[in-house]
Amino acid sequence: MTKNRLEAFSDGVLAIIITIMVLEIRVPEEPTWHGLLTVLPTLFSYLLSFVYIGIYWNNHHHLLRLASGVNGGILWANLHLLFWLSLFPFVTRWSDESGFAEVPVMVYGITLLLAALAFYILERALIRYQGADGALATALGRDWKGKGSPFIYLAGTLVAVVQPLAAMGVFAIAALIWLVPDRRVERFVGDGRGE
Amino acid sequence: MTKNRLEAFSDGVLAIIITIMVLEIRVPEEPTWHGLLTVLPTLFSYLLSFVYIGIYWNNHHHLLRLASGVNGGILWANLHLLFWLSLFPFVTRWSDESGFAEVPVMVYGITLLLAALAFYILERALIRYQGADGALATALGRDWKGKGSPFIYLAGTLVAVVQPLAAMGVFAIAALIWLVPDRRVERFVGDGRGE
Amino acid sequence: MTKNRLEAFSDGVLAIIITIMVLEIRVPEEPTWHGLLTVLPTLFSYLLSFVYIGIYWNNHHHLLRLASGVNGGILWANLHLLFWLSLFPFVTRWSDESGFAEVPVMVYGITLLLAALAFYILERALIRYQGADGALATALGRDWKGKGSPFIYLAGTLVAVVQPLAAMGVFAIAALIWLVPDRRVERFVGDGRGE
Amino acid sequence: MTKNRLEAFSDGVLAIIITIMVLEIRVPEEPTWHGLLTVLPTLFSYLLSFVYIGIYWNNHHHLLRLASGVNGGILWANLHLLFWLSLFPFVTRWSDESGFAEVPVMVYGITLLLAALAFYILERALIRYQGADGALATALGRDWKGKGSPFIYLAGTLVAVVQPLAAMGVFAIAALIWLVPDRRVERFVGDGRGE
Repeated sequence: MTKNRLEAFSDGVLAIIITIMVLEIRVPEEPTWHGLLTVLPTLFSYLLSFVYIGIYWNNHHHLLRLASGVNGGILWANLHLLFWLSLFPFVTRWSDESGFAEVPVMVYGITLLLAALAFYILERALIRYQGADGALATALGRDWKGKGSPFIYLAGTLVAVVQPLAAMGVFAIAALIWLVPDRRVERFVGDGRGE
Repeated sequence: MTKNRLEAFSDGVLAIIITIMVLEIRVPEEPTWHGLLTVLPTLFSYLLSFVYIGIYWNNHHHLLRLASGVNGGILWANLHLLFWLSLFPFVTRWSDESGFAEVPVMVYGITLLLAALAFYILERALIRYQGADGALATALGRDWKGKGSPFIYLAGTLVAVVQPLAAMGVFAIAALIWLVPDRRVERFVGDGRGE
Repeated sequence: MTKNRLEAFSDGVLAIIITIMVLEIRVPEEPTWHGLLTVLPTLFSYLLSFVYIGIYWNNHHHLLRLASGVNGGILWANLHLLFWLSLFPFVTRWSDESGFAEVPVMVYGITLLLAALAFYILERALIRYQGADGALATALGRDWKGKGSPFIYLAGTLVAVVQPLAAMGVFAIAALIWLVPDRRVERFVGDGRGE
Repeated sequence: MTKNRLEAFSDGVLAIIITIMVLEIRVPEEPTWHGLLTVLPTLFSYLLSFVYIGIYWNNHHHLLRLASGVNGGILWANLHLLFWLSLFPFVTRWSDESGFAEVPVMVYGITLLLAALAFYILERALIRYQGADGALATALGRDWKGKGSPFIYLAGTLVAVVQPLAAMGVFAIAALIWLVPDRRVERFVGDGRGE
């Protein structure tokens, strides 16, 4: 019951974040293919942020599925994660409107980094609540993706100092790594059939 | 449980898409009936997009109802569908603000086409997961509407090259075809009583 | 299950409608009490639309509670209702920005009228599905509020021709009538204790 | 069932309120660290309002968890609370755009005060429905936080007359008091393990 409401609220917030970003996309000035080309970088950054929110929804879903319950600390760890994710529309817009300038892209990377740390904190809080021999601790195992991705975001943020567009490429690659579904958890709960 | 959360998240995203489009409608410049007339094309394109999102919610609902479960691939097939649907407010606004110019209307049609393909991919992923003799495969049968509508969107997109407003008419007719409820699935699950 | 998802989607749409209207409220130009006074009509029209969406959520909730199931026709009757309700932010903004001019206030009233008719159509569809001797038909009985309020909206719309602000008063009174909870249904399902 | 739908609707509204505020954050004019500095007050007021909505979601969640059911009066007490919370984006934006001038900050404090009173009214309505010896009355006990915080908001509002920025500090401290999870209820329902 409590867990369900946490999921429902998170789903609501994530659904809104993923959707309102489209309100930010400026309509091309000319109604031509060339006009569409001029907003392609905007569409690309929208797609990237869409995929990141999708990844977080996916991982959040897998995480909560194995969780046995929640307490006050977990509720706040979850809100902390949602806070950083809620800044995505802001940092996406800033990066885009600045033409992917150095500082906005660095801020984009830092937001990715802080969201990843917030996810890690939530994960630890859930494992601590369930116990080290619970389903969550077993399923996550060494969790190299969760532990590795903050370093990629940090690397991308540093790359932005030299070449902001290349940094966006790094963030895109980090997203692709996550797109590979989290088979560890899936195998554990046994629905990794087919696909 | 997993299926429920997929539905809940999709419902959230679709509810937001269908609702935020109204934020895009410009208020008429004069507070007169004539002023209202000038925004009628806007209201018409809002209605059309509202109906399309409604159709997708409806079909999504029927589809998931017969699905037996979801896996990582299905989650991403679903997000892929939501991505194209999330572009509706953007393409609706562009078509409208350009006074239904050729390219924006073509982009509207292409978005309809890609959303339809995404729905088809999701359908296949669900059937593959359930097996070819499952309720879904049986209920959908030949699925002429699902297979036929991409061709209508393609036709409308091509019509837009010559006459964009006629293309909007084609898209409106394609919507009307979908408005006929999906009796196949309904009959199968046995709640096609009355109505 | 089907009924639950219909409720969840409607809840989502209504929650968004009721909430995004606040985005429309312009911030007062001066940061003074006088500045706040200048946006009071805006806040009043926001409150009125908030109350109306609240009334519809409330009535929708009571209605669906007694419903035994839904079919394709009911899904579309529900979307039809949501469409008219989704126009509330638009008509509220137009009425407000025009300084409550005649035509925008009439359009506000007509939207109230069409939403009320859409609710009636949904009610009939649900009763038809359940049967004339079902819980819904019995609980609603003569339903004088449901049948009477369209006439109040019509009267208000006509009053707007002469005196738009008086029409807003009529709509506010009609809202107050609905604020009296629907005791018929509540008594029937037996949770009218206390309060 | 009824309680669930009340929770779902409230979750939806709170999720939207907490998320749309980010749409209000203006992008810095220059793409530099200095540009980011100029929007820091905006980000701070966004964070404060995010935390307040989070607190209300948290408390609402604990409150409803112990509630045994709802009636028409409770539905409206809940909508009354949501109304004041829905004004947060408006008062946050006004405070921020005015550079935290006296009147907007006072209006921020008054909105906090009215939301707190609305929460108290909802609490009373739920306790009255359940009875004075129910789980809710027992768990809440003397509820010094619920009864005390309106006085803090009132104090902050008065401080704003002299020093608006100090008032924002008072509101921030009041939020920190709430961040301490509501151990009374948690202990009662017995999930205060770990953490």
